[in-house]
Amino acid sequence: MRVKTLEWRDGTLYLLDQRKLPAVVETVACRTVEEVARAIETMVVRGAPAIGAAAAFGVALGARAGLKDDVQRAVTEACQRLGQTRPTAVNLFWALRRMQARASELACRPPSEVAAALEAEAEAIYREDIAQNRRIGEFGAALVPPRAGLLTHCNAGALATVDYGTALAVVRVAREQGKEVHVYADETRPFLQGARLTAWELLEDGIPVTLITDNMAAYAMAKGLVNLVVVGADRVAANGDVANKIGTYGVAILAREHGIPFYVAAPWSTVDLSIPDGAAIPIEERSPEEVTHVFGQRVAPEGVAVLNPAFDVTPHSYIAGIITEHGVLRPPFDRALAEVGRRE
Amino acid sequence: MRVKTLEWRDGTLYLLDQRKLPAVVETVACRTVEEVARAIETMVVRGAPAIGAAAAFGVALGARAGLKDDVQRAVTEACQRLGQTRPTAVNLFWALRRMQARASELACRPPSEVAAALEAEAEAIYREDIAQNRRIGEFGAALVPPRAGLLTHCNAGALATVDYGTALAVVRVAREQGKEVHVYADETRPFLQGARLTAWELLEDGIPVTLITDNMAAYAMAKGLVNLVVVGADRVAANGDVANKIGTYGVAILAREHGIPFYVAAPWSTVDLSIPDGAAIPIEERSPEEVTHVFGQRVAPEGVAVLNPAFDVTPHSYIAGIITEHGVLRPPFDRALAEVGRRE
Repeated sequence: MRVKTLEWRDGTLYLLDQRKLPAVVETVACRTVEEVARAIETMVVRGAPAIGAAAAFGVALGARAGLKDDVQRAVTEACQRLGQTRPTAVNLFWALRRMQARASELACRPPSEVAAALEAEAEAIYREDIAQNRRIGEFGAALVPPRAGLLTHCNAGALATVDYGTALAVVRVAREQGKEVHVYADETRPFLQGARLTAWELLEDGIPVTLITDNMAAYAMAKGLVNLVVVGADRVAANGDVANKIGTYGVAILAREHGIPFYVAAPWSTVDLSIPDGAAIPIEERSPEEVTHVFGQRVAPEGVAVLNPAFDVTPHSYIAGIITEHGVLRPPFDRALAEVGRRE
Repeated sequence: MRVKTLEWRDGTLYLLDQRKLPAVVETVACRTVEEVARAIETMVVRGAPAIGAAAAFGVALGARAGLKDDVQRAVTEACQRLGQTRPTAVNLFWALRRMQARASELACRPPSEVAAALEAEAEAIYREDIAQNRRIGEFGAALVPPRAGLLTHCNAGALATVDYGTALAVVRVAREQGKEVHVYADETRPFLQGARLTAWELLEDGIPVTLITDNMAAYAMAKGLVNLVVVGADRVAANGDVANKIGTYGVAILAREHGIPFYVAAPWSTVDLSIPDGAAIPIEERSPEEVTHVFGQRVAPEGVAVLNPAFDVTPHSYIAGIITEHGVLRPPFDRALAEVGRRE
């Protein structure tokens, strides 16, 4: 993909505005913690790994702004503000903890050194994300048959990460290996990440993609169009339960019913071993307007009640494997996750 | 509901324009066969029973137009044209056969008598539909617990029929009986019948409704919000397989997975005993623009491939009961349907 999801240049974080794609390709420049926080809240940037990287740069911006005052306090305040943006994706908190820890290590160093180190740390998170995605793609590609219909939900692509994607890294590597992969992209209401983002980035890269409404997934499976499902994740609990974009749980049930393996692709930073199971994962409820309006156009009657959970939880029993940069974890996930956790 | 789905007045068929709801409440006047055919094709009127009734009036219009020429040929041509509008809902063909049969009975009678008889026949179909829906509602209401969350897909309400609805007749009668019924309405992409029509007609009648995107159904079920699912049908095969709006099959799978009974509510005119099973039901594929655009606003990148089956087939094994005006049919459906078929 030619356009970058996020880019750090001359002390400014440039974010591709994902609310406007695919009609408008535009970047938003963030120069303060508050601007980064707002960009995360309003979904200028979304996708667990991309949120994590953006937040890391947000902390770096906070540190620089605090140079004349108290850099350590500025970092703490940046982490607090950024930590209030979105509750479900754990990569956000992982990135903030990592940035905070780096600042704490340098508590006795001059402010300019702390700020420089935090910028370097954010850049490391950025680079590592790309490398991890590449490895996720390689481990995942081994699961893809030579001719595959791969269904994905939401966008776990380059636009959800620094680059390359998680679920879509699997597609990209499989195709590099000469496999024929056709992607079926759920449009993913209400925010339409599948229609607007997944379809767009795959078309940009010349990867065959067919767009379906969310409620066509069962039809596509029954027609034999789908060999495997690969989705991303916003948080993986210690038992392997996975929070991901609303609708993922339904897709997992449909996949099992049709005998189709359902995989989750996510970097280790998405794993939250402190949480025993999915029931403990906080699920963000977003504005009703996301459901009642599409691009500002009202599609439902005024005054109608709405549910708008941004995520759901897929119990681990529906998951065939969790594809991480450390390999494909298999059930029993509690044991597999704990084992990687001990090594990490 | 105060506004009528379709109304026959002074030799004109007035159709509530369901493409524009809920923003605009407007009727389309049809005075020719072609105008009725176009209204069915473009979904001014939709819903299997409503399509059947509209087509019947279309034949009546054709007969009147043929008065000076050959009324029998005009009826045959009207049936041919109207029969080409939409392939899946069998109520259309049922109504056309009934109108054609009535014309044939009167082959030796004066043209004006034939035309008058066909108008009366269409009006009979109209009145019978309301009475059948009322009975469907009564049989179905017995299946609704005293406090119920009832999930429905698409619109099987007053707007899909002459009045009262099929699935929503169940809701209306249950509430008349003093039951507390809260409806969860799938928005039903791509045409958004749930958001635009079901939510609207329930709000108009003061019936509690919560709108969800299609991909939230599994979430709502897992949260314990849903006690039963009731949907309409476009065609019921001899073995009980049911064609209904795209997404119905997925909802049926999700319902079973959560131990929630899944019911189909449909008049007997929706049953097609000539077709052995769902595989034989023709599924209409509609324009890609319905998926890539919402109210004229593009939501997907140009050039993306799209599936747009308007319906899917739910195998009978997922269905707890088929609610008809002859009672609630239970598995084995082949036997239950054949038995009613013999009596009819």
